[in-house]
Amino acid sequence: MVKNKRKAVVLLSGGLDSATTLAIAENKGFEIYALSFRYGQRHAIELKAARRIARTQHVARHLILDVDLDKIGGSALTSNIKVPKNRSSEVLQKNIPVTYVPARNTIFLSYALAWAEVIGAHDIFIGVNVLDYSGYPDCRPEYIAAYQKMASLATKAGVEDRQKLKIHTPLIKMSKAHIIRKGLELGVDYRLTHSCYDPSPSGRACGECDSCLLRRKGFKDAGAVDPVRYLK
Amino acid sequence: MVKNKRKAVVLLSGGLDSATTLAIAENKGFEIYALSFRYGQRHAIELKAARRIARTQHVARHLILDVDLDKIGGSALTSNIKVPKNRSSEVLQKNIPVTYVPARNTIFLSYALAWAEVIGAHDIFIGVNVLDYSGYPDCRPEYIAAYQKMASLATKAGVEDRQKLKIHTPLIKMSKAHIIRKGLELGVDYRLTHSCYDPSPSGRACGECDSCLLRRKGFKDAGAVDPVRYLK
Repeated sequence: MVKNKRKAVVLLSGGLDSATTLAIAENKGFEIYALSFRYGQRHAIELKAARRIARTQHVARHLILDVDLDKIGGSALTSNIKVPKNRSSEVLQKNIPVTYVPARNTIFLSYALAWAEVIGAHDIFIGVNVLDYSGYPDCRPEYIAAYQKMASLATKAGVEDRQKLKIHTPLIKMSKAHIIRKGLELGVDYRLTHSCYDPSPSGRACGECDSCLLRRKGFKDAGAVDPVRYLK
Repeated sequence: MVKNKRKAVVLLSGGLDSATTLAIAENKGFEIYALSFRYGQRHAIELKAARRIARTQHVARHLILDVDLDKIGGSALTSNIKVPKNRSSEVLQKNIPVTYVPARNTIFLSYALAWAEVIGAHDIFIGVNVLDYSGYPDCRPEYIAAYQKMASLATKAGVEDRQKLKIHTPLIKMSKAHIIRKGLELGVDYRLTHSCYDPSPSGRACGECDSCLLRRKGFKDAGAVDPVRYLK
């Protein structure tokens, strides 16, 4: 927390991608304001991971907001739709899965924008990724570009300071293996992260949901050991 | 609630503008899904007004979401900054006031987008207005256009159906007097609405905040009687 560092808001889910994104933002010299959401996700245990990561990385502040996404529904992550298991990577790449949460990144980025405005930050980091994963519309570069344009018109800072807001997406074109190698290089402790969409009551990763499969393949492709223990 | 009507999500604060917007959307033949927010606003009494309006107008559904804007702060409406009183209309038109809530419309529209996606709506109505009011950046037409572009890239509907989302802003270039005349023509009962930023504990409008001043002037210019009773 050195004075006069540029501030950045970093969206921190507690997963592998956002932990790596946070490390990248820190490595670029930003003072980190980490933002997480309790949104009725069935894997709310990821918030424990987010807290551990924020503490370990010495962020300036970690804010966890309650948002009512479960009242809106429409996703396997926030309602009773079953989380799919053991799907092939071809299937993953072809369809938007039921774990897609309607407009989630748009909502999360909008809170990040509000917080950025209040603390005087002009940089937001989000760990979206198009390559390994699976057709979420709000992870695509054209979506991020459109969001950034809208955001630069949305706030007092944009109007008065003429300082444009930048949405940083350092992982957007990395493979999962590439992300993991980058994170290990920056000292990310992946034991602290949680990726599983459908953990056991005690918090163990299922090993079979889309998110577990991508993570396991990522570590394998990176030639690294995944420190997480899986149920299957 | 006739079948096969097109659905629209309408942002309903409980104020004069959103009540009029809702009536306009209904008049256009949409089935209305009204969306309100409890966001730590000091004038949370407006939600009572929103409920009354939703009931009177027979909306298909009225959803009130809790959002944590007060944790982010930065506005007289969600923190202890004093609400300004008795300001001249020149002042109102020149500066972004302390009642501006950072990124509020961006956050509200993002929830509307999520709900629209879940219920299969492609139309969102918001009662923003640039003329009478006062430099809120997220009320300007260029902001709305950029939001609409972003939103059409953000969702599964946008990707799969190629059906573009439309953000309707029927009031955007109307004066307050024009809005009131339009609402009266459509049968809006303005007794049900609440505009004051700083009501008394019993819910009476102060009569002196920016919002009360604009409302009073609007009724006067429209040659109509404001059914709300003011403290001063």
